[in-house]
Amino acid sequence: MTKSRLEAFSDGVLAIIITIMVLELRPPEEDYTLKSLLALLPTFLSYVLSFIYVGIYWNNHHHMFHLVDKINGAVLWKNLNLLFWLSLFPFTTAWMDHHYMQPLPVAIYGIVLAMAAVAYLILQKELIKAGGPDCKLARAVGTDSKGKISGILYIAGIGSSFVSTWVGIALYTIVAIIWFIPDKRIEKIYRNEED
Amino acid sequence: MTKSRLEAFSDGVLAIIITIMVLELRPPEEDYTLKSLLALLPTFLSYVLSFIYVGIYWNNHHHMFHLVDKINGAVLWKNLNLLFWLSLFPFTTAWMDHHYMQPLPVAIYGIVLAMAAVAYLILQKELIKAGGPDCKLARAVGTDSKGKISGILYIAGIGSSFVSTWVGIALYTIVAIIWFIPDKRIEKIYRNEED
Amino acid sequence: MTKSRLEAFSDGVLAIIITIMVLELRPPEEDYTLKSLLALLPTFLSYVLSFIYVGIYWNNHHHMFHLVDKINGAVLWKNLNLLFWLSLFPFTTAWMDHHYMQPLPVAIYGIVLAMAAVAYLILQKELIKAGGPDCKLARAVGTDSKGKISGILYIAGIGSSFVSTWVGIALYTIVAIIWFIPDKRIEKIYRNEED
Amino acid sequence: MTKSRLEAFSDGVLAIIITIMVLELRPPEEDYTLKSLLALLPTFLSYVLSFIYVGIYWNNHHHMFHLVDKINGAVLWKNLNLLFWLSLFPFTTAWMDHHYMQPLPVAIYGIVLAMAAVAYLILQKELIKAGGPDCKLARAVGTDSKGKISGILYIAGIGSSFVSTWVGIALYTIVAIIWFIPDKRIEKIYRNEED
Repeated sequence: MTKSRLEAFSDGVLAIIITIMVLELRPPEEDYTLKSLLALLPTFLSYVLSFIYVGIYWNNHHHMFHLVDKINGAVLWKNLNLLFWLSLFPFTTAWMDHHYMQPLPVAIYGIVLAMAAVAYLILQKELIKAGGPDCKLARAVGTDSKGKISGILYIAGIGSSFVSTWVGIALYTIVAIIWFIPDKRIEKIYRNEED
Repeated sequence: MTKSRLEAFSDGVLAIIITIMVLELRPPEEDYTLKSLLALLPTFLSYVLSFIYVGIYWNNHHHMFHLVDKINGAVLWKNLNLLFWLSLFPFTTAWMDHHYMQPLPVAIYGIVLAMAAVAYLILQKELIKAGGPDCKLARAVGTDSKGKISGILYIAGIGSSFVSTWVGIALYTIVAIIWFIPDKRIEKIYRNEED
Repeated sequence: MTKSRLEAFSDGVLAIIITIMVLELRPPEEDYTLKSLLALLPTFLSYVLSFIYVGIYWNNHHHMFHLVDKINGAVLWKNLNLLFWLSLFPFTTAWMDHHYMQPLPVAIYGIVLAMAAVAYLILQKELIKAGGPDCKLARAVGTDSKGKISGILYIAGIGSSFVSTWVGIALYTIVAIIWFIPDKRIEKIYRNEED
Repeated sequence: MTKSRLEAFSDGVLAIIITIMVLELRPPEEDYTLKSLLALLPTFLSYVLSFIYVGIYWNNHHHMFHLVDKINGAVLWKNLNLLFWLSLFPFTTAWMDHHYMQPLPVAIYGIVLAMAAVAYLILQKELIKAGGPDCKLARAVGTDSKGKISGILYIAGIGSSFVSTWVGIALYTIVAIIWFIPDKRIEKIYRNEED
C-alpha cells in the first residue's frame, strides 16, 4: 500500500484547517481605526499559536512518513484519528478567542492539543509496529523525551488554566517552542541516510 | 488515462467536505460554561458520525483505486457522482444537528447516506466493467455481502426515523461500524499481491 | 517545466469551488418540514447545474493536459485566468439562487459561464501554440464545433434571460448536456495512443 | 528530503486562500439591479488585485522550487512563514473592501503585502544557502533588481496611503504588474536547462 495518497489527503486537511482558522480573524466592520485593529490582537495571537501548532504537526507528519516505507489499513484509521483532533483546532481557537480570560475555553484548548498529541503517538506506534523495532522511524524516535515533557506540560497547562489562564497559555506556548526547535535525532537519521 | 489526477481531485474534495463539517460546531458566543459546551454534544456526535462516514469513503476509495489499473471517461463522471452525494453530507448533518429529534432531517440524512452508497456501487461496477471480470477489484469485491447488508440497514434506518429518530441514527451507526472493521477480502488481495 | 504542479493547483482550486457552492444550500434553521425542504429545490437545482459545470471543466482540463507535454510561463497565467472565472461560479450561482426569476442574475450567471469558456479556449490556444500545429491536442480539438455551438447558445441564453429566465437557464443546461456527452474525438486519440 | 510534499501543501494552502477571498464578494441579498451589482465593483477589483498577487506568488514559488534540488528543515519553516503572511490576504482584502477610502486599511493591506515579500526573500535566501552559491537558483536570482524596486514601491505605497488611498493602491498595482511580466532570467535558465 503506497503512502502517497495518505500524505496528499493529510496535506489537504491540514491546509484547510490552517486556512479556516484565519476566517475567525474578521476585519472590524464598522471601524477603520488603529484602536479597532489592536482590539483584534488576542485573536491574532491565538491564530499565530494555532498556526504554529498545525505547522509543527505538518512538519512532524512529513518527517515521520519520510522515514516510513510500509503502511496498512490500521495506519489509515490512526491517521484519520489524528486529523480528527486537529480538525477541532479552529473550534477551540475560536472559543478561546471569544473568552480568553476564562478558564474553561483555555483548558479545552489544551485538552484538544493534548488529544492530538496522543493521537500522534498512537499513529507513531502503529507505524513502528508495521515497520519493525529496527526500522528507521523506531531508531529516530528513541526514548522520545520531547513527547514525555510535552505530556507533562499539557497536563500542567490544562490544570493551571483554572488558576490563571495566562499560565495555561504560556505552558502551551512552551510546548510549541520545544517542537519548533529542529529535532536533531531525525535530522541525523536523514544525514546518515544520504551518506 | 492515469488515475492519479482522479485520486488527487477526490482527495481534495473529501478533505474539504470533512473539514467544512466542523464549521457547524460553532463555539458558544455568549457563554464560557461547561453547560454551554455540553449543549453542543449532539452537534459534536453528528460531526463524529459524519467524519467517520467520510473517512470510510476515503479509505474504501483508496483501496478500490489501488486495485485498479484502467480508468476511462465514464469512471470520471461516476466518481463525480459519488463526490456530489458526499458533498451533501455537511448539509444533511447540519439539518439533523438543528433538529435531531425530528423524523424528516434524520430520514434525509439516511437517504443521502444511501445515495452515496449507491453512487459508490455504480462507480465500483464501472471500474469492474473497465477492468474485466477477472480483474483484482472484481475478485476483491466478490459477493459483496457488506454492501447488501448496508442497503437493508439504510432502508430500515430511513423508515424507522419516522417512528424513533434514535433507532434511525443507531442503524446508520451500525453501518458505519460494519465498514469500520477492516475488510479481510481486500487486505488478503493486498497480501497476495505483495507475495 | 513540468505540468504536475499546475494540475495539482488547479485540482485544489476546482475542489474548493465545487465544495464552497454547497455552503449556499443552508438547511432551514427554524423548520423541519417537507415544505421547508422543498423550498430549497431551486437552490439545489442551481447547485446541481454549477456542480456539473465545474465537473465538465475538471474533466476537460484533465483530458486537455493529458494530451500536452510542454507548458511555459504563459500557460500558467492563462490557466489562472480560467480559474479566476471559475472562482466566480459560487457568486453567480448564489445571486441566481436568491432571485431566480429575475433577468439580471440569470444573465450574469451566463456571462460568467461564457467568460470561463473563452478563458478555456485561450488556454487551449496557448497549449497548441506551445505544442505546435501537429501536437496531439491540436489534432484532438480539430474544428471544435462543440465550442462554436456553445458560444452561440451562451449568447442566446444571456439575451433571452431578459425575456424569460427559464429559457436562459434551459439554454445553459443544454450547453452542459452537450459537454456531458463524452467527446469522441479525444477518446479516439486516447485509444490510438494506447495502440 | 524530497520537495514534493512541501509543494503539495503550499499548493493546497494557496488554492484555499485564493478561493476563500471570493467569499467576500457577497451577492446583493435584497436586490437584483445593475446598480446593486455595480456597488460591488470596488470589492470585485480588490478581489482581482489579491487574486493576481496570490497568482504571482504561486507562479514564483513554482519557478523557484523547480530550480531547487535540496531542501531541509529550515526551508519547511521558512515556507510556512511565507504561507502565514499570504493567509492574511483575505483579512486585509476584506478590511480594505469595507473601507477602501480610509488610510489605515489600505496601509495594512500594503504592510502584509510587504511582509509576504520579505518572507519570500527569506525563503529564497535559505534555498540558496542550502544549494550553494553556484546553484541554479542563485544564478537565476542574480542582483534581484525586481525585488529591490518592489521594496521601494511597497514603502512608498504604505506611506502615501495616509495622503491618498488611490496613490497607495496604484503603487501596489504597479508592483503586481512588474511581477506579472515574465521573468526573462528564469525563463532563460529554463531554456538552458533544456538544451
